[in-house]
Amino acid sequence: MLITAPPDAPVRKLLPEPTAQLAAEDVYTDISFPTREARPYVLINMISSLDGKVAVGGKAGSLGSLVDRTVMRNLRACADAVLIGAGTLRAEKLTLTVPEDHTRARESRGLKPQPLAVVATVSGDVPLQENLLGSSPENLLVFASSETPQEHLVTLSSRASVEVVAEETSKLGGLDLVEALRTLKKRYGVSVLLVEGGTVLNHALVSSGLADELFLTVAPKLLGGERPGALSILEGPALTPHKTKPKLISIHISGEELFLRYTLSTEDSSRC
Amino acid sequence: MLITAPPDAPVRKLLPEPTAQLAAEDVYTDISFPTREARPYVLINMISSLDGKVAVGGKAGSLGSLVDRTVMRNLRACADAVLIGAGTLRAEKLTLTVPEDHTRARESRGLKPQPLAVVATVSGDVPLQENLLGSSPENLLVFASSETPQEHLVTLSSRASVEVVAEETSKLGGLDLVEALRTLKKRYGVSVLLVEGGTVLNHALVSSGLADELFLTVAPKLLGGERPGALSILEGPALTPHKTKPKLISIHISGEELFLRYTLSTEDSSRC
Repeated sequence: MLITAPPDAPVRKLLPEPTAQLAAEDVYTDISFPTREARPYVLINMISSLDGKVAVGGKAGSLGSLVDRTVMRNLRACADAVLIGAGTLRAEKLTLTVPEDHTRARESRGLKPQPLAVVATVSGDVPLQENLLGSSPENLLVFASSETPQEHLVTLSSRASVEVVAEETSKLGGLDLVEALRTLKKRYGVSVLLVEGGTVLNHALVSSGLADELFLTVAPKLLGGERPGALSILEGPALTPHKTKPKLISIHISGEELFLRYTLSTEDSSRC
Repeated sequence: MLITAPPDAPVRKLLPEPTAQLAAEDVYTDISFPTREARPYVLINMISSLDGKVAVGGKAGSLGSLVDRTVMRNLRACADAVLIGAGTLRAEKLTLTVPEDHTRARESRGLKPQPLAVVATVSGDVPLQENLLGSSPENLLVFASSETPQEHLVTLSSRASVEVVAEETSKLGGLDLVEALRTLKKRYGVSVLLVEGGTVLNHALVSSGLADELFLTVAPKLLGGERPGALSILEGPALTPHKTKPKLISIHISGEELFLRYTLSTEDSSRC
C-alpha cells in the first residue's frame, strides 16, 4: 500500500517568493533541469537532522515525515534514473520506484513509466532480492568495478544489467564515477540522475565536481550519536574550500520540516 | 576594530511571517525569553555547513558571514552570560563580549553592559590570557570540576572567578551542569544564558534536557572532513528518540545563509 502525505500536512513555499499553501504532491513538480552533454545532470536528495545526521540507527527511513517521502517521490518522478550506493541498500529494505499516478505524468513528459534503478558497488555484495523492492530486472542496473569478485558479478547479472567500470582508488566510493555517469548518459539515455546516498557516494560525487544540485530536507530532530551509526550527508575527507558554492534556490516548509534546494557550482563542473 | 555586516547584506524574515528587509543589526533584537526559577533559560547558538559540520580545520570562525557574526552579537546582547567549553577556547582566539552600541541597549533593558563570560573546564587547561580577548577578570567566570588539578585552579583564580562543581562522569562534558546552571542563576543572577559550544558541551546540555532553544545558522557550504577536525553541533552518544522535539520558531535569510530558531521541548525540561 502506498503511503502518501496526509491532506492536513500542507506545504508552503517561502523562497524565492512566498506562495499560498500547496499540496505535498505538488512540490518540485514545476521544476526542470538543464541538459549536460556528456553526463546526466545530477541531483542529490538527502534528509538530515538539525545536528547533521542522516540516519537513525543506521536507517534513514525513519527520519522524515510522510511529506518528505512524498517530496522524495516527486523528485524521482523528474529523474530518468535513481542511483544509490550498495551500502544504503544493505542497510534497509527500500524501493527506487514512483507510485502509479507519477507514471502517467512521466509518460506525458516523455519519460519512461519508472526511473531506471541503479546501484553502485565495488564489493558486489548487493542484496537486490532481499532489500530492493519493486524494481524489475529489466529496469535495474548495477555498476560494479573491475575489483568486484566474479561470483558476485554472475549473481548480479541474473537479476539486473551489470556495467563494469574502472576502479577509482582515489575515491572512497571506489568506482570511476565519471565513466559510470558517461555510461548512464550514452548507453541508457539518462539526462537527469537522482542520487539518494549513501554518504560516501555523495562525497565522491561532490568532491569530483559531479553533483549539480542538492535537495536537503532538514528534519526537526536532534539525534546525537557517533559513527558508524551516525553519519552526515557527506562522509569523506575535507573538501577543497570554495570548491562548491551552494546557491539556495528555494525553501519549502511543512510543519517543522524544511525542504531546501541548492545548486552546487564547482570549479570543474564543466569538465564532463 | 569592530567588523559588522555591510549595509549591502540585508536580512529578510521568512517565518513566521515574511517581512520587508531588515538590517542584520536588528535580527533577534525584538525577542524575549521566559524566566526559569532554578536555572537560566538556555540558548545554544551554532553555525553548521549543509553537511552538518561546525568547523573548518577545527575553527568555527571562518564558517559564517559578517551577518552571522552580527546575529551572534545580537544574541549575546540578550544574554546575561555567554558560556563556552574550554576546548572551544583552546581551538582559537575569540571574544565573548558585545560591541559598544549594544552595551547602551543592554543598560536600558536592565542588563549589565557586558554579559558575564563563562568557560567550563574539567582539565583546567584554559588559555584565558592567550585566547580570550576583551573580558576583564571581574566579568569572567570559570567552572571547574572537583577533578581539576589544583595548580590550574590557582592559575585560573588569578584571572577569573572560579566555581568548582561536582564531576558528572556520565556526561562527556564532565561537569555537573545542573549544579553549574543553578550557581549561575543563584549566585550570578543569570536569567538568560547563551551557549556557543563546543559540541560536547552542547550535547551534554541537550541530553540533560537543559537546553531551551537552538539558534542554528545554516551556512551554504559543503565541508566534508572527518573527526577530529569535522564535528557536528552535538558530539556524543545517540540521544533518546523523541527526547527533544525542536519547534521551528523563525527563519531569517541573508544571501545564501539561513538563520533558524528552534525551541527544544524535552521531557524533563521542567526538572530544574
